[in-house]
Order: sequence, then C-alpha cells, then structure tokens
Amino acid sequence: MAGAAGGMSEGEKVLRDPVYGYVYIHDPLIWAIVNTPEVQRLRRIRQLGPAYLTYPGGEHSRFSHVLGTYEVVRRLLQAFGREQQGLAPARGRLAMVAGLLHDLGHGPFSHALEHVWGPSHEEWGAKILEDGRTTLHQVLADCEPSLPSQVADVLLKRHPDRLVTSIVSGQLDADRLDYLRRDALYCGVDYGQFNLDRILRVVQPLGDRVVVKPTGLQTVEAYLLARYFMYGQVYFHPVCRSAEVVLRQVMSRARALAAGGAAPWAPAPLDRWLGGGRLGVPEYLALDDSHVMVALQSWRTSDDAVLADLAARMLDRRLFRYSDFPPGFDLRALGRAQQAVANHGFDPAYYLQVDEALGVYYDYYLGGEGTAGGSEPLYVWDGSTLVEMSSVSAPVQAIARERHGQRRLYFPAEVEPVVVEQLNTR
Amino acid sequence: MAGAAGGMSEGEKVLRDPVYGYVYIHDPLIWAIVNTPEVQRLRRIRQLGPAYLTYPGGEHSRFSHVLGTYEVVRRLLQAFGREQQGLAPARGRLAMVAGLLHDLGHGPFSHALEHVWGPSHEEWGAKILEDGRTTLHQVLADCEPSLPSQVADVLLKRHPDRLVTSIVSGQLDADRLDYLRRDALYCGVDYGQFNLDRILRVVQPLGDRVVVKPTGLQTVEAYLLARYFMYGQVYFHPVCRSAEVVLRQVMSRARALAAGGAAPWAPAPLDRWLGGGRLGVPEYLALDDSHVMVALQSWRTSDDAVLADLAARMLDRRLFRYSDFPPGFDLRALGRAQQAVANHGFDPAYYLQVDEALGVYYDYYLGGEGTAGGSEPLYVWDGSTLVEMSSVSAPVQAIARERHGQRRLYFPAEVEPVVVEQLNTR
Amino acid sequence: MAGAAGGMSEGEKVLRDPVYGYVYIHDPLIWAIVNTPEVQRLRRIRQLGPAYLTYPGGEHSRFSHVLGTYEVVRRLLQAFGREQQGLAPARGRLAMVAGLLHDLGHGPFSHALEHVWGPSHEEWGAKILEDGRTTLHQVLADCEPSLPSQVADVLLKRHPDRLVTSIVSGQLDADRLDYLRRDALYCGVDYGQFNLDRILRVVQPLGDRVVVKPTGLQTVEAYLLARYFMYGQVYFHPVCRSAEVVLRQVMSRARALAAGGAAPWAPAPLDRWLGGGRLGVPEYLALDDSHVMVALQSWRTSDDAVLADLAARMLDRRLFRYSDFPPGFDLRALGRAQQAVANHGFDPAYYLQVDEALGVYYDYYLGGEGTAGGSEPLYVWDGSTLVEMSSVSAPVQAIARERHGQRRLYFPAEVEPVVVEQLNTR
Amino acid sequence: MAGAAGGMSEGEKVLRDPVYGYVYIHDPLIWAIVNTPEVQRLRRIRQLGPAYLTYPGGEHSRFSHVLGTYEVVRRLLQAFGREQQGLAPARGRLAMVAGLLHDLGHGPFSHALEHVWGPSHEEWGAKILEDGRTTLHQVLADCEPSLPSQVADVLLKRHPDRLVTSIVSGQLDADRLDYLRRDALYCGVDYGQFNLDRILRVVQPLGDRVVVKPTGLQTVEAYLLARYFMYGQVYFHPVCRSAEVVLRQVMSRARALAAGGAAPWAPAPLDRWLGGGRLGVPEYLALDDSHVMVALQSWRTSDDAVLADLAARMLDRRLFRYSDFPPGFDLRALGRAQQAVANHGFDPAYYLQVDEALGVYYDYYLGGEGTAGGSEPLYVWDGSTLVEMSSVSAPVQAIARERHGQRRLYFPAEVEPVVVEQLNTR
Repeated sequence: MAGAAGGMSEGEKVLRDPVYGYVYIHDPLIWAIVNTPEVQRLRRIRQLGPAYLTYPGGEHSRFSHVLGTYEVVRRLLQAFGREQQGLAPARGRLAMVAGLLHDLGHGPFSHALEHVWGPSHEEWGAKILEDGRTTLHQVLADCEPSLPSQVADVLLKRHPDRLVTSIVSGQLDADRLDYLRRDALYCGVDYGQFNLDRILRVVQPLGDRVVVKPTGLQTVEAYLLARYFMYGQVYFHPVCRSAEVVLRQVMSRARALAAGGAAPWAPAPLDRWLGGGRLGVPEYLALDDSHVMVALQSWRTSDDAVLADLAARMLDRRLFRYSDFPPGFDLRALGRAQQAVANHGFDPAYYLQVDEALGVYYDYYLGGEGTAGGSEPLYVWDGSTLVEMSSVSAPVQAIARERHGQRRLYFPAEVEPVVVEQLNTR
Repeated sequence: MAGAAGGMSEGEKVLRDPVYGYVYIHDPLIWAIVNTPEVQRLRRIRQLGPAYLTYPGGEHSRFSHVLGTYEVVRRLLQAFGREQQGLAPARGRLAMVAGLLHDLGHGPFSHALEHVWGPSHEEWGAKILEDGRTTLHQVLADCEPSLPSQVADVLLKRHPDRLVTSIVSGQLDADRLDYLRRDALYCGVDYGQFNLDRILRVVQPLGDRVVVKPTGLQTVEAYLLARYFMYGQVYFHPVCRSAEVVLRQVMSRARALAAGGAAPWAPAPLDRWLGGGRLGVPEYLALDDSHVMVALQSWRTSDDAVLADLAARMLDRRLFRYSDFPPGFDLRALGRAQQAVANHGFDPAYYLQVDEALGVYYDYYLGGEGTAGGSEPLYVWDGSTLVEMSSVSAPVQAIARERHGQRRLYFPAEVEPVVVEQLNTR
Repeated sequence: MAGAAGGMSEGEKVLRDPVYGYVYIHDPLIWAIVNTPEVQRLRRIRQLGPAYLTYPGGEHSRFSHVLGTYEVVRRLLQAFGREQQGLAPARGRLAMVAGLLHDLGHGPFSHALEHVWGPSHEEWGAKILEDGRTTLHQVLADCEPSLPSQVADVLLKRHPDRLVTSIVSGQLDADRLDYLRRDALYCGVDYGQFNLDRILRVVQPLGDRVVVKPTGLQTVEAYLLARYFMYGQVYFHPVCRSAEVVLRQVMSRARALAAGGAAPWAPAPLDRWLGGGRLGVPEYLALDDSHVMVALQSWRTSDDAVLADLAARMLDRRLFRYSDFPPGFDLRALGRAQQAVANHGFDPAYYLQVDEALGVYYDYYLGGEGTAGGSEPLYVWDGSTLVEMSSVSAPVQAIARERHGQRRLYFPAEVEPVVVEQLNTR
Repeated sequence: MAGAAGGMSEGEKVLRDPVYGYVYIHDPLIWAIVNTPEVQRLRRIRQLGPAYLTYPGGEHSRFSHVLGTYEVVRRLLQAFGREQQGLAPARGRLAMVAGLLHDLGHGPFSHALEHVWGPSHEEWGAKILEDGRTTLHQVLADCEPSLPSQVADVLLKRHPDRLVTSIVSGQLDADRLDYLRRDALYCGVDYGQFNLDRILRVVQPLGDRVVVKPTGLQTVEAYLLARYFMYGQVYFHPVCRSAEVVLRQVMSRARALAAGGAAPWAPAPLDRWLGGGRLGVPEYLALDDSHVMVALQSWRTSDDAVLADLAARMLDRRLFRYSDFPPGFDLRALGRAQQAVANHGFDPAYYLQVDEALGVYYDYYLGGEGTAGGSEPLYVWDGSTLVEMSSVSAPVQAIARERHGQRRLYFPAEVEPVVVEQLNTR
C-alpha cells in the first residue's frame, strides 16, 4: 500500500478531533487553505495563552480552534440546508473560509499579548490576507480574485453580507460555539457544556441574522450560561490572569531595557520587535510562541535582575498572588502599597499591577442596534415577531445586567502580607 | 479575598485534568516536586512529539502525563489499602514520587528525537536526579538524603523494591494506564479506552508483582487490546512516523553541516549540541521543544537547500509519503529507488528513509523472567496459583504472537511515482 | 468456581451503575436492606411514570434512583470525613439508610398517580417502616429497635437531627443530586448536568445545615440551573404531562364505574382499590406498575366506551394535545370549550383537562426559615457569615423569582380545532 | 401555543435517545409504523429480560432498541449515499422498515422466555406482519401491498435482496451495532464500546454484502471484540443466567400444575397459554412483561409450595447460586447432586438446572457460505479481492476459534455446600 502522508484519499478529507469526533472537508479550497504555511503556523500558538499554567490540559493551539470553527460553520450551513434555508454556494463558501481564517492574525500567546504586537488580531488577519506575498493570498485569489478582500471584510465586520458575518462572529457564532466547548474539554472543566446538535436544530437564518426558534429558548439559555460560567472559571480565573500579568511584565521589561540601549538577546524576528521596529507581515508570520519561550530561557540568566527574575517566575510557574480591592478602597491605599513593595526591593512598576477583567456575558443594546462596534442582540423568532432574548428569559436578563468587572491587584508572594495590610488600612 | 496565585489552599491540592477530572495531591513533598523548575520544564515538551501534525488535538505535554501517572499510582495504592494490602508509607511515597518523575529526562519532542540527545530518557532522568545543582535534587534530598538515588534506581529498574518498580513501569503500570487513555482522549480516537476504576478493583500486590484476580480477566484483556489498538492507530500511524522521519532528517542535516564547518544558527543551548559538544545537565534542562521550533524557523531560510527544504516541510506540514515494502522485495529494488530519487535531484541520504516500527503488544518471555531489560509477564492469581495471562486468554495470546514489525519507505511526494515503480519492479 | 449468584464476594459489594460507574456498599445493614422484598419492589415502579412515552430512554425504575441516592449520601459523608468534618457513625448510617429508603413509599407510576393511592409517598414510606410485618422493619429493628421510627422521622422531616434530614432532603440533597443527572442520562437530554465531584468538594456541614464554600458559588449555580432546565425540559414537558393526564383519566373513569356498581376487572390488589377499599400495607406493597398495565390491557376491550378509549390511548400512545391559555382568557371560554368537546361526543369530564404545573426552581423563604413543610434556603459560608445564595448570584435570583406556573388545557386531537377556536374567541 | 402532543412539528420528527442523541425520522411511513399499537407494545417488553436483577440500569425496552436499529440503518444508508453507493429508494425504505420491525415478534422477557411462547421471535414477527387484522399490516399494505410479506421475508432471511437482509441481520448489522452499545450504556459497563461513526466510514455495499475497507480493519476488530466482551460480561453473566433459570422454572412449574388440572390463576391472555391453548396473534400481542409480573405476584401466595417459593425468589431477587463443572466431571456426580438436593427437600426437577451458554463470537464457515441458517463471514475488500476477516486479524481469529461453551449448574443457596461437595467427589 502506498499512502498519502496526508493520510487522506481524494474526495472527502477527515481530521480527528476530540470535540466533534471528525472534522469533514469536502471543498478542495478549504483543504488548500488548511495546508498553507499561514494556517499551519497557528499550530504554534496556544489558544489560551499561558492558561495551561492553571489548567494543565489547556495546551491546545489556535489551529485546533480554527478547524473547529470551520466545522461548526459547515454544520450550521448543513442544518440550514436541511430546512430549505440554505445559503447560496458562494455565500456558504465565504462563511466556511472566513470561519477557518477568523483567527489567522493571532500572534504569540494570543489574547495575553495581543496588544503587544500592535494592531488587533483581526487587523493582522486582514493584512495577511491582503498581502500578495503570502501563500494564503495566492490560494484565495486563484480561486477568485476578490476573495482575499472579502474574507478580510468579514473579519473586520465591514462586509455587506451581514448574515455571513454574524455566522462567523455574532452573539451565537461558530467561533464561540467552538471555543466554549473546546476550552472546557481541554481544561477539564464542565461548565462550558451545551448541546451543539440541538442548537443546530433551533436556529435559522432570517434576513441578516441568525435567529432562534421558540422551541430553542432553553437550549440557547444553556449556551449563554455556558459563556457565563466559562468567563468565571477560565477566562477571568485569577490565576490565569496572574500568568498573563507576569508575562506582560517580562515583555515590558525587555522592551524598556532595549529602549534604554541595553536590549537583551532575543531570537529573530522577536529582536526586531524588541528594538522598537515595526513588524511587517513576513516577520509577524515568522513569530510564534516558541520565540517567546526561547527568549524567556535566555532572559532568566540576564544581568538585569528584574528581567531575570520575571522570566524565571514565568518559566517555573512562580506567579504573582492577588488581592481583590476591599470595598471603600481609595487611591492612597494603592500608593501606600506601592511604597511597601518598593521598600521590599521590588520595583512597583513591574511588581504591582492592577488587572481589570471586564466582561459582559450577554451584551444587548438598549438603545438600538446601531452601536458602533457592538454585536447585535439575539432574537427569538416565532414566525411573525422578533423578540430580544433577554426579554423572555429571566436568567439571561440576570447575567446581561451583571457587568462582571473584576479589578484585582497582583504582586509577588514575598510582599503579600504588606500589600494586603496597606490595602485594608484606612 | 486575597488568594494564592497557586489557586490552592493549604492541605489538599487539586489540579483539573481532562482524563481524571481531578488530580489530588495530599503530600507536601509531591507538591514541592511538581513546582520544581525541572518538572515545570516538562510543560514545554510535547508528549507525542510531532504527532499533532496527524492528530491536531494531540498537543499535550509530558507534564500532563507525569501528573496523570502520579495520580494513577496514588489510586492504585489507595485501592491496595482498601483491601488491607497497602504499602508501607515510605514505599508508597517512593512509588508516587517515581511515578511523577519517571519521564523527567525526556528532551525536545520526546521519543521522536530521543536518541538525538545522547543517553536514554531514563538515564537523563537519573542524571538530573543525582545532580546536586538541580532544585529537584535538593527538594528530594531535603526530605531524605537517599531519595534522589532511590528514585533514579526505580527509573533505571535496578531498585531492589521490585513491586514499586513494577507499579511505575511494568506490564500493567501507571505509566501505560495513563498514557493510553490520555493520548486517545487528546487525539480524539477511541481505541485506547478501558475502565481504570475496574482495573483498580481487579489487581493486587503479590510479593514483587502486581497480579490480576480471576474476575478481572476480561478487564485486563480490554487494557491489553487498547495497547494493541493504540499502537496501530497512533504510535505506529504511518503519517505520525513520517513527521518523525522528516524531523530527524532536518536535525541530521543541520548536524552534518556543522560537522562540515558550516553550522547553521541555532539558539543556545541547541547550538552546543549542533557543534558536537556534549550537553551537561544544566544545558539539557535549558532545552525544550521551542528551541527546535525556533531553529526550524531560522533554517527555512538557510542557504543550504536541503536544510531549508526539510525545515519548511516540517513547519508547513508537507510530510513525506510512504510505501510498504512489497512481498518478495529485495535490496536491489531499494538501490534502484535511491538512484531514481537522486535522478530527481533529491539526496537519497535525506530523502529516502526506511522506517522500522517494531512493537510487540504483549511481550511475554517463554524462557523465564530473567531476560535482561525485559518486563515481566502478567499473571492471574486465583489465590493459589500464578497463571501467565496469555495462557488463559485467546485474544491476548493472539496479539502476543504478532510481532508487528512494520517496515515502510518514506520519500517526498514529488518522487512517489518513480519510487513505487522501482519497488514493484523485479 | 462456585459463585454467589449475588455476584459478590464478602466484604465490599459493588453494583454497576450508568451514572456513577459503581455503587459501593460496605455496611452489611445496607446490603440487607437492599435485599428486602420492600426495596426490591421498587424495581417494578418507573421513576418517571409515563415519561418514557415522550423520552423513550426514560424507562428506569425507582430502584436505580434509591441506590444512587444512597451512593451520593455515602460520597458526601466521605467528603465531609476527608475534611475532618465527618458525622459520627450512627448519624452517618442513619443518613445512608434514609437516603436508600427515602422513596420506599412510592406506588405505581410514582408521582403521576401519587394522590390516587391515598397518603403521600413519604407517609406510605413511614407506614411500611413501622409495620412489624415487613421484612424491612425486621431488618432495621434487628439492628436497632428505634431505627424504623428514626428513618420514618427523617422521611417525614420531623427527626431532630436536621443535618441528616437536610442531607437526604433539602435544597442540595442527595435525592436531587441523583435524580437530576440520572433522569437526564436516561432521557438523553443534557440539561441536567453538573459536576458532582466538584459539589462534593465545595459543601460542608455547619450545624444543622449543609452549606456552600465561597469557591463553590458557580458550581452550585450550575446545579440550580440544572434544576431549572430539567423542570422545563422533562418534568413539566407538555407531552409528559399529557401522558399523566390521560393516565389519571383512565384511573378516574375506572373508579367512577366501580362506584356506579359496574367495576371493570382488575388484578388483585388493584381491584380492592377500585372497589373503594382502603389499601393496607401488604396490599400496597403487592401493587406495582404491572398491575396498572395489565388492567389497561383488559380495559381496552371494556364495554364502557370511555374506559376502552382512554386505555387504548394510553397503551398505544395516542395522547391528548394541548393548548396554553391565551392572555386575557376567561372562564366563559373554558365553558364554551367544554360545550364544543361535548358536541363532538366526548365527555368533557374526561376529555378536557386543565393541568397546572407549578414549580419554583429555587424557593427561598423571605419571611424566615420556620415555614411549615418548606425547605431551608441554601447558604454560602465564608467562615464567618452565612449569606443566602440568591443574594449573591444574579442567575439564581432570576430563577428564584420566576414562579413557573404553567397552566395548559388538554384534549383529544380530534377536537383540537374547535377547542383552540373557543379559547381564542372573546 | 397549541402543540402536538407528539411533540413534533410536521416534516422531520426527532426522538431523544441516550445512545445517539437523536433518532431522526423523515419518512412518514416510518413515523406511522412507530405509532402502531404493535410497535408501541415493545415498550412493555424488556430488552434484556431479567438482566436488570444483575445490572440495575439494564431496564430498557425492546422499543428503544428497535428505534436505535432503525437509526443505524438510516445512518448506514446515508453513509453509502455520501460515497455514491446509495441504495435505490425502495430498497432503502425496505431496509429501514425491516430494521425497525426486526424484533417485532418478541414476547415477554425477550430471549429469556423465547421458547416458552412457541415459535421463534422471527416467526412471530412474520405472523404479525402477515395478519390482516393488525394495524401494522394495514399501514404497510396501504403503502404497498407486498410490503408486509417483503418485511417478513427479510426477518426470516429468505428475501432475495440479500444486501438488505445483511444490513438488518448479518455479521456487521444494524441490530448488533445498536444493541452492543445500548446494552453497555444502560448496564453501566464499558466493554461494548466501538466507534459507530468510524464504522460508517469504513464499510460499503458490494453486491450482496456489506464489506470492510482495508483502512477499517482495526475499527471492525474493535467491534468484534466488543461482542466478545459483552457476551462475557453481560449476556452470559452467571447471575443474569441464574435469573433466567429461575424465571423459566417458575413458568415451567405453573404449566405443570395446569397440566395436572390445578392451574394457578393468571391474567388473560397468560391463562390461555397456561392452559395449554395456542396463542393466536391477537392474544400474543396482548401479552407483555406485566402479565408475567402480575402472575408472579399472585403465585407467591400460591398453595403450591414450589410455585410460591420460585415466584418469591424471582420477585425478591433470591436467585440460584451456581457452580462450574469441575474437570473430569461425570454424570454420576450429577446424579449424586440430584439426590442431595432431594434430601434437602427440594425437587431436583426445579431446583437443579444445567445451563449451557453457547456462543461463538465470530462464527465463520470454513466449508463455505452455504451453511443453512448461518450468517455469512465478514470480508475485507481492497478493491480487487475479498479476504475473510479472521484470516487477516490475529485477535479475531483467536476469538473465532474459541467456542465459549459455558456449562454451569444452578441450585438454591441452601444446598450449595452439598451440591459442590458431590460435584467434586470422584
């Protein structure tokens, strides 16, 4: 037997996946996109940044998530088709391609370092798509010249086909439908569970939107509550946030040293970023989690004590501890805490950080849908009227109202007693 | 609320895990070991090497596996205790510590590159344990001076406590009990399933061995068959092997260039290995998957065409294709295939590789137990007699007899037609 | 090998269970209770009455639920013990025995026909326990003379040990912890899921109560939301209620005929009930689902057209259809609907039924805890203060406020158009 | 909202199922068949007879299994269709209908009492299909006059469309594909697991047969091993067999009394059977598990001591114990055991039973395929040659060779010591 090292025969391609069992690929364009260097690169970027330091199983890559997002789009379109509400082939293909590419622009450690690399990941994604030098651009343009910019428009939410956009990125989108379950599975938590098969049965396209049938009310409630729980248990978990804080402090220290003319070593193209240079598309694409890890290994023996200490904390998982802000807390207390940290020999600029995790689990817009940049609300459609979800669901209304701003102070364990004391002193 | 960034209160520590739900840690020594830099380093080494290129979900680290192995040891000991056959505390602790540390010595990409780094992973593990400079050595020696060498002895299977050794590494050991299910879960295959709870109920210590009660015959058959299936579906999967072949060719080419005085760049301490230098314990510990990944990124733009090509194949997942050897195949056919590959401009030394995957699923020793390096067979114990497993189980006997040597030839897709033609020509 | 047909050796007994894997029994008293005819009888009573007509998988018996409830009590006590908060042996045993026996008094079709058999199932349970003729009474009294009445007191919530009572039957009790997951599993729905292992870790006894640790807030939210979903999807499902309505109409018609001197045949001891006689403990114990099923088979060929029709509807699953009451509905519309049903030749007394499903998912008592018959609220305990659950959880507050009274009208499909028309006429 | 009490809108019907999530029904004929009294009756017959006395969760009905079998046929046909190998609509419909109806003819307690009711369940199924009085016959004949006899022919394996027959009932048929996983799930064992999705991908129709692609070898091995394990753990479990033995003894005693003119009471139509009358189709259809249960309740207070004792053993789960036959056992020992049982006051005709559980897990026919009544072997098809499965799979060959005849002797616990003594005496 001679075999394709790709392990697949012609026609249908399948990939094993712990969430869906199989991911099915029938369209050769999708298969070609999966095999571009730009998409393969996502295998080298962790989906949840440094969350694996809190949840040891959470080591999966962006690649597995984008494959899963594609698969959810595919199943959604199939479900629409079964009810004679399928999208025209070109729209369906655009939705599947955009689902597969929606996170194309993520850089090392995903959201944890997103702002470090300049533009947002959506903007990086659009740049990569529109850069004629990338294999991905070629593959898309060979299929249809306008496809790269069309996909970019979906990523930037400016494509005129709002239904396609909302399938990829809306209140009930393929992105969230994949990551909630995927992150829950790998992290070993069971809060992010809801029934995808049932969701596929209770949604339908209606004009620009994906809407919910009345029989699906509780199914969609379960999904919105899964979001609520996953934010509480994983995405805003105080230890996950601690790892992000420490990681950002290391990067910040390294760049400050470089700005002062004492740049620590870093592997290319990370050295370019460190030196303050702007990353072009090729440099950005050449960068992944491993460059940061190799830099950290080097920095742990740096002459700069702060850099060395922070890098070692990150590698050896000696994260910062944290405190919530006590009620009635005022800025003078923070000042005193900074002083106390400094008194212990720690530079408060690096060793005392406020972290603000602000999330609204189900953000609906009272004032109408035109809110710039905002997602549309979710609607229940009974065949004649659209009703906004939170107005018919008490639990959804409850979590919609809660704006879970969680502000915490992070600092080394060594100074925990003095910081906590200062925070609680009036 | 002020919180331990470790996310745990005093007393029992728990870690979430997708396989067991929770990993429980009660012994402060175990917790201290988990938190050493040497064990944390295992987070940066993939459990299945480059298998994630075949099974996208198989991205988990050695760290998750060693935690799991520890947890299986803990549950085994608990099960023995429930039946009044518990081990004395010091033996139990040694078993748990050795379970946690059994893969300490793995290097970048685990088994896929194991022989590249010199000694076996067990020997590296022993070196790290016995090196007074490591935090791990200190933590163990502080607990008991002989502990580092005792653990090393268990890893090297020369410890006099053979029961402890066989709990960690035997025919029915915590290592396999963990990895079969873990690898199956992450890869999204379902062949590696068996019921751990039931296995815990049907095994017992008997002298030097862990033996099986008669009621557990089918349970243990299911476990041995899970081994059989996982070898076929994952460990010997031809595409997984292809990725290993390509990865080894890249490393081999880089080292050959270095030997010729044209060493390509590599991040420290990988450059030392490249230069032919011996890695000491500190260098080895500073090395992980990310160094190889960063080197590959650099090498893909190397002036050496072979190095650049192989690195790009690895990063972009353009793996080698393969062919089984036809029956009646002889060496002249291989010679002709080499010639054909060369005629297409590929150096056969790098672009035509024989891969031999030899596994025996259940290797019992007819001639006695003394076989050097071999594992003991599995015994069923009915209260009076020990009976070797395969003699009472037809399916086990069947897979024990099968020596699944799979020899395949790997080569680039570009030369597939000519290679296959030559192989099949007489 | 000679074997116990009970399939168990001495010492620990285990029973397979789809929810927990295994149910473990260590106390010979528990094993003796399981093997009494009174507990074995629960194998012949369906847990969810006629819900299997809606959810084909929901065919499990009370027996599997009471075993599961026992197992949850056992695990709760074990969890308390691990944290040095275990109950004294006698209290623990009382809790386990009461958990196993809490549903002892259920009759055919459980809640669907509960009021048909006279006293509540708790009162029947107490009667059976205190009746010296039952094997169960003997087994308990042989262990300790006061045990039968102690268990009865727990069932009737009048036992002075309020902690034990609340473990068996409270806001976070073993009963609900078992049935939510069990019913969800068998019915094939996935709304009733929550993590039992985690709940075991976040609760603790505190005086008279089981309270929740602050780290367990979201875990317990997930459990309360599982209750909310299971009520909506299963327990108040309109088709499940339809089957209950039809079943009660059959029983009602049969008894009316008997009262009129034309009792249809029924197997003993159902004939005694039909004749208006009071059931004593031995008769009640001799009665199970099969008597009702055999009677239905006989009644489907009855001379009485109403009885024959209703019995056939039940056996062949031709259930009633239903309508919600339109807003602004008044009693005159119901009168008109009755007339319309009668005009079609159906006796409205049997063929037009209002069903009121009233459930409050999390009922807390604003006015204090002393409310007769009511459950206590759930409290979060941070080591110094008790805080009522809904006051710290927006979603719980939301579902606590909702009193899901669902009033529906049930009628044969044949009259659906006319009934719906009358309901919607002003 | 007015609702169909069937809970379904027009068009696609779905039923929840714990094994598949959903069972999908698109063909109105299938829906009409499901709703016939003859199929609804299967809700009142337990799939595994009295196995629930051993595995408390194993309480599911034939109805859930036949729905599941239909669903597997539907998925198989869909899979064939995806690869352009779909069956013509009439053949596909025949396969789905026959899948749904393949167990139509089972009577009370399924296989445990099968021979008690006269013809085999396949023959009863054919009788019901061909009896013009049944609703099912009408529904099928209304669709196509020959359909009732066509389905009957498939059940009796005499239909000329051998592919359709083998989809319903062959070595890799929908029947087994459903029951292995279903029985495993409900019983709470995990030996019957294999991956249905993957099996659907590796089989294809080829002429008269369903054959296996070479890539599916291990998948099908896993399925055949699941059969092996389920026979060992459930179907031939000694305690399951004990319950069947006791149940058959009760029925046998009752009939013997009736033959002697002292028929105990039984509900119609069981009384007709008891009196030796032949059951016609209407009587057989009016009979289900509940009639046997009601009879047992009555018989437990019979004047006949043997009948009363056996009925009580069955109801209260005081089953027989068992012994394997020792090697070298001869008939004289059995004679001595009978004498010993009689000496203890038990009639050996009812209280000493040999049970022979003979099963061959994968029966292939060395001498050719023509063997009367036998199933065809399984073939692997590589595009040019058919290879019999066991010739390419060592584990399958191993279990094919094993003819697991298990002969055991059953008797009351009271006489266990004397029986075992006699058996082991030479």
